[in-house]
Amino acid sequence: MVVCLVLLLVAPASLWAQSDPLPSWNDGPAKQSIVSFVQKVTDRAGAGFVPPEQRIATFDNDGTLWSEQPIYFQFAFALARVKTLAPKHPEWKTQQPFKAVLDGDMKALAASGEKGMIQLLIATHTGMTTDEFTKTVVDWMATAQHPRFKRPYTELVYQPMLELLAHLRANDFKTYIVSGGTVEFMRPWTERVYGIPPEQVVGTSFVTTYKLGPNGKPSLFRQPKIDFVDDGPGKPVNIQKFIGRRPVFAFGNSDGDQQMLQWTAAGEGARFMGIVHHTDTTREWAYDRQSHIGRLDKALDEAKARGWTVVDMKADWKKIYPFE
Amino acid sequence: MVVCLVLLLVAPASLWAQSDPLPSWNDGPAKQSIVSFVQKVTDRAGAGFVPPEQRIATFDNDGTLWSEQPIYFQFAFALARVKTLAPKHPEWKTQQPFKAVLDGDMKALAASGEKGMIQLLIATHTGMTTDEFTKTVVDWMATAQHPRFKRPYTELVYQPMLELLAHLRANDFKTYIVSGGTVEFMRPWTERVYGIPPEQVVGTSFVTTYKLGPNGKPSLFRQPKIDFVDDGPGKPVNIQKFIGRRPVFAFGNSDGDQQMLQWTAAGEGARFMGIVHHTDTTREWAYDRQSHIGRLDKALDEAKARGWTVVDMKADWKKIYPFE
Repeated sequence: MVVCLVLLLVAPASLWAQSDPLPSWNDGPAKQSIVSFVQKVTDRAGAGFVPPEQRIATFDNDGTLWSEQPIYFQFAFALARVKTLAPKHPEWKTQQPFKAVLDGDMKALAASGEKGMIQLLIATHTGMTTDEFTKTVVDWMATAQHPRFKRPYTELVYQPMLELLAHLRANDFKTYIVSGGTVEFMRPWTERVYGIPPEQVVGTSFVTTYKLGPNGKPSLFRQPKIDFVDDGPGKPVNIQKFIGRRPVFAFGNSDGDQQMLQWTAAGEGARFMGIVHHTDTTREWAYDRQSHIGRLDKALDEAKARGWTVVDMKADWKKIYPFE
Repeated sequence: MVVCLVLLLVAPASLWAQSDPLPSWNDGPAKQSIVSFVQKVTDRAGAGFVPPEQRIATFDNDGTLWSEQPIYFQFAFALARVKTLAPKHPEWKTQQPFKAVLDGDMKALAASGEKGMIQLLIATHTGMTTDEFTKTVVDWMATAQHPRFKRPYTELVYQPMLELLAHLRANDFKTYIVSGGTVEFMRPWTERVYGIPPEQVVGTSFVTTYKLGPNGKPSLFRQPKIDFVDDGPGKPVNIQKFIGRRPVFAFGNSDGDQQMLQWTAAGEGARFMGIVHHTDTTREWAYDRQSHIGRLDKALDEAKARGWTVVDMKADWKKIYPFE
């Protein structure tokens, strides 16, 4: 009899725990806005119902699904590749921005600016076939460690966002990444890490060309030229180009996501616009209006003015990373 | 007793009919090669097994999924749009290639060549928002009729290919269109007609730019500039860009599909490469090496040399169109 009573008392709580799709989110307005949006669009009888095929959800990657400090993880990959490739490029010893990378001179590197960054990207991301490039990404991801957490970069993904992605997919959303990062840096691992397959990853791209080798074997060669920058106004452009439907749900964390959020907001019917605000100096990082990485300024103003959901990382997330 | 006997005799045949996924295909090597390929890649115990997430199938559109004679259907749309827009463009009365269209002078139109065709495309496909363009496509599709069959163009799709698309999807393939036609001409109707959603349509594209209107409402504006031509070597480039996986199954009908087929063939494991050969003067059209539309010459030679599946439309298809 005692056993039965205990079961009766315990059962409802455990049922509740099982049915909470977002256990790493603290109860609060951010979690509430997500849960009620998903309820609304999946309620066939309600005015906010969205047919499953129109449930397109787009997520920025850096700073939205995984961390982006102290430098964008793709930039860490580029720096590592410069060091690996340096023996084949003796000229880099005296040539900026390569010299700065090899000397570990972060000040000189910063001084090289956007132009220097593009030079580093081109030197490390092009001049090989797509298959060869994929291999360098896979190899680096398997061995590189984040300087602060001493773990593979792919472990620095946000547990609350993994739960959100799964919750959306369980409700027939198609989840996409729409990132300023280059697409072929992400595709080799997004399926394993986020459950997002390569064909649902949109990003910045380099020009590639088709070549038939002497043996008749074709390859796609990565040319030293940027094809399209998937950032800011480029995000809605690429959403239209790649997906061809307007998202009903979008999540970002910086001014580079502002136009994607505007484009999502301007559609008809139920919409969700979310921003991850980095507010946790202890467990992650805190930065916004003044940051060089992931600057969140204009988009934060617009979010507040228009009532978009702003996630306060420190207050809203019980857990940041899966390994905690 | 007689009734029972009849049932016994009839049942197996009707079961067979139900289980044939390709009823509009005559028994023969083309049908056999499709059926056995699908069996092979879905047999978990076999050496040719392909995991569901890698089952990417790409189809050309014009001449592969629907007809392309006497002119590409998109070109018929462009000509109709020129006539509709002419009152706003008095200068077209004397300016080629527009004059040729308005005069119905097909000889002069042909003489304007590829340059003229691009001028017509730009005049009719750009200079408006994406939403506005979609509306012109939807309206035209609802009213325009094919000159020979006197039916909407979307009824001139191939019944055997509809069955093939459905058969592949029933076996966990993701079916894509990869077409030389422009992507936003196809997306408004491919889901209804082929069961292929907008996000699985890849095609030639125009540059679009993001604009915030005076009311704060964003739009994507179609610029008079081609972004990328999804034909020939552009097809594998776009497959990599949009899908990020190599297809295991590809179907085309012309030399513009040759590189897509080569790229598919060059992957590891089980592969299927198919070509629709237009051989039916009576029910459809017959053309190949000498045709200006859908020329099939080099790809036919390569298909024969490498043992790709060549569909003989006249011999292999019981039925061409659903309405027959």
